[in-house]
Amino acid sequence: MRPQKMSEAEIILGLAALPGWSLREGRLHRVFACKNFQEAFGRMASVALAAEAMNHHPDWSNSWNKVTIELITHSAGGLTALDFELARKIQTIFDG
Amino acid sequence: MRPQKMSEAEIILGLAALPGWSLREGRLHRVFACKNFQEAFGRMASVALAAEAMNHHPDWSNSWNKVTIELITHSAGGLTALDFELARKIQTIFDG
Amino acid sequence: MRPQKMSEAEIILGLAALPGWSLREGRLHRVFACKNFQEAFGRMASVALAAEAMNHHPDWSNSWNKVTIELITHSAGGLTALDFELARKIQTIFDG
Amino acid sequence: MRPQKMSEAEIILGLAALPGWSLREGRLHRVFACKNFQEAFGRMASVALAAEAMNHHPDWSNSWNKVTIELITHSAGGLTALDFELARKIQTIFDG
Repeated sequence: MRPQKMSEAEIILGLAALPGWSLREGRLHRVFACKNFQEAFGRMASVALAAEAMNHHPDWSNSWNKVTIELITHSAGGLTALDFELARKIQTIFDG
Repeated sequence: MRPQKMSEAEIILGLAALPGWSLREGRLHRVFACKNFQEAFGRMASVALAAEAMNHHPDWSNSWNKVTIELITHSAGGLTALDFELARKIQTIFDG
Repeated sequence: MRPQKMSEAEIILGLAALPGWSLREGRLHRVFACKNFQEAFGRMASVALAAEAMNHHPDWSNSWNKVTIELITHSAGGLTALDFELARKIQTIFDG
Repeated sequence: MRPQKMSEAEIILGLAALPGWSLREGRLHRVFACKNFQEAFGRMASVALAAEAMNHHPDWSNSWNKVTIELITHSAGGLTALDFELARKIQTIFDG
């Protein structure tokens, strides 16, 4: 059961519930700034676990205290419910 | 320059500044309960980075949401300033 | 669908296929020695991901280069197929 | 004691000893492909520890099994001995 590509209307609604996230080249995008590398990588480890449990992984980068996240469902060629679900989990992890 | 083993009086003073920590078989001891494994392992990753940067490592265990920490300076055969410094860093990581 | 507690005969057969692992107080037990803390914690991060994906987690401890693993299915009150599956994954990770 | 920016000749010599690495926009660059996300993130955890111990951190990104590393000494405005030292450590970690 492959996740279905969302419509623009669904994406706009989804984004409204994700403050701080934006759409960038068709992907959910957010940059988190932590207090240092120790905190940034610790959060990344939590995100890695959440992603592996969903078998849905971010395209992400890190530069010291900054973590940049991009989410898309490659197999669907666009955003799906999986991306929004992972975004919400990531949000909770960085807020924690 | 090896860290020096602390006296009992110094240890008692040090512990007074570390609420939640206790002395157990000559080691600084604390159990942290996180909300789940994702949070627990994320905190552990931050602790691992703090420890590696000090080149002073905990004896620790994990069982799902619980992280048990024990600190001692093996080379000094007791507690040193390193253990209290790492304990404070760990405290900050789990409070964050 | 809860995993079923294995019989002693099944456990003995399972252990035969897991060189280096033993039975200790009813749990699958193994100690891995890495070359240093960096390697040990890196392997632990891989194990954490494997465990979270299975939603089946080890009771484990670490002391610098050493990682001690204990596996049991608490909800079944004994060893189940989940423990052997996770043990095989852990084995692959430390052999990698 | 800030690390000194290396000359082009020094950089070329350094690169000769780092097979698989190249120069890209003035940075040491390499992409590692692991067998899956579990392995990739485990290696990243080891790299994170090595970086934190040196207090010299990579600019890096990850997409499932791929880890892309870029090294530069921002404070020196170019490559320094720190970048080559970290590159060698990363090399050892991914070879391990």
